Amino acid sequence: MKLAAAFVLAALSASAADAPAPPAEAPVYTADGRLVPPPDYREWIFLTSGLDMSYRARSGMDMHMFDNVFVKPQAYREFLRTGTWPDRTVLVTEVRGARSKGSINQHGQFQTTEAMGLEIHVKDSARFDGGWAFFAADSAAPAPQIPVQAECYSCHREHGAVDTTFVQFYPTLLGIAEQHGTFSAAYLKERDQSGGGH
Amino acid sequence: MKLAAAFVLAALSASAADAPAPPAEAPVYTADGRLVPPPDYREWIFLTSGLDMSYRARSGMDMHMFDNVFVKPQAYREFLRTGTWPDRTVLVTEVRGARSKGSINQHGQFQTTEAMGLEIHVKDSARFDGGWAFFAADSAAPAPQIPVQAECYSCHREHGAVDTTFVQFYPTLLGIAEQHGTFSAAYLKERDQSGGGH
Repeated sequence: MKLAAAFVLAALSASAADAPAPPAEAPVYTADGRLVPPPDYREWIFLTSGLDMSYRARSGMDMHMFDNVFVKPQAYREFLRTGTWPDRTVLVTEVRGARSKGSINQHGQFQTTEAMGLEIHVKDSARFDGGWAFFAADSAAPAPQIPVQAECYSCHREHGAVDTTFVQFYPTLLGIAEQHGTFSAAYLKERDQSGGGH
Repeated sequence: MKLAAAFVLAALSASAADAPAPPAEAPVYTADGRLVPPPDYREWIFLTSGLDMSYRARSGMDMHMFDNVFVKPQAYREFLRTGTWPDRTVLVTEVRGARSKGSINQHGQFQTTEAMGLEIHVKDSARFDGGWAFFAADSAAPAPQIPVQAECYSCHREHGAVDTTFVQFYPTLLGIAEQHGTFSAAYLKERDQSGGGH
């Protein structure tokens, strides 16, 4: 196995030396600053899902929707190591249809084939004031940045547990942030006032 | 990049030649046939989640629970290629607590840090009649096989869309199975009778 690891390192080095392209996992933008939605986010690391969560403004709550959150594997591994996100982190929230009756299911909600859009949160300090930007994609087409006056920016800044992200809703990362002491002051205050952890 | 690929192949070959151990992704059993719960399933490919789905017998539905389904990356890639599961496939369903009010969330349900157990579905034709077996784990300890008389076996056989698995609830795989024509006869009949797809 040590032999194998050495070969892999050699391979990675050889690849980096002859390829001027950005690392495979870096966010990709168009010349006019739109973000190319990552085509392979479903193969990234899953962080959580929610049903009809309401800190995000929505209309038409007669219908139900799931949110699935994915993060790039490199950023995930760095979070495990440090308790926070490295530059070039990309988080994708996939909004997906929910249904109760289908096949043999009779109650509760399952996810359908109806993918209803992506909300993409990108950390790229060289590009964005405050380090992070949001993009909304409803297809594979490049997505424009959401203006920084939008509510998502202020809400994430004011309530995100770690580095403007909602780690309080990512069960496997919450303890990592606790261990590393990387919670935001605002989150710690909110948590203390609510009388306990989440 | 071709150079890199050659190095990686060389590395994999070297590794296989000097390592008698099973492939990294093969299921691991104890001598008495219990399954060692895979410690890294949260880093596998996410297939879907559901809330309070009821084709599985449950008690205490005053509380809410999410199911998160993960599959080994190798098996996922093989499914993309063929529309069905290779031998040694492992599917993990993680049962996780749900909560409505917490941090700034007010409605809907989000996932909590309370992991409530794993249901593990393993395809291993050399070991199991019919190819597949179920295991239930409530900790990292090796889990005994669920007896083959249990309802999960007959339900999956009679209703699973592909090879006794509930691909009808895995949104990104349903179309792959359709393309490859790998649906079970029972599923096709059920779908026709319900007057359409899911």
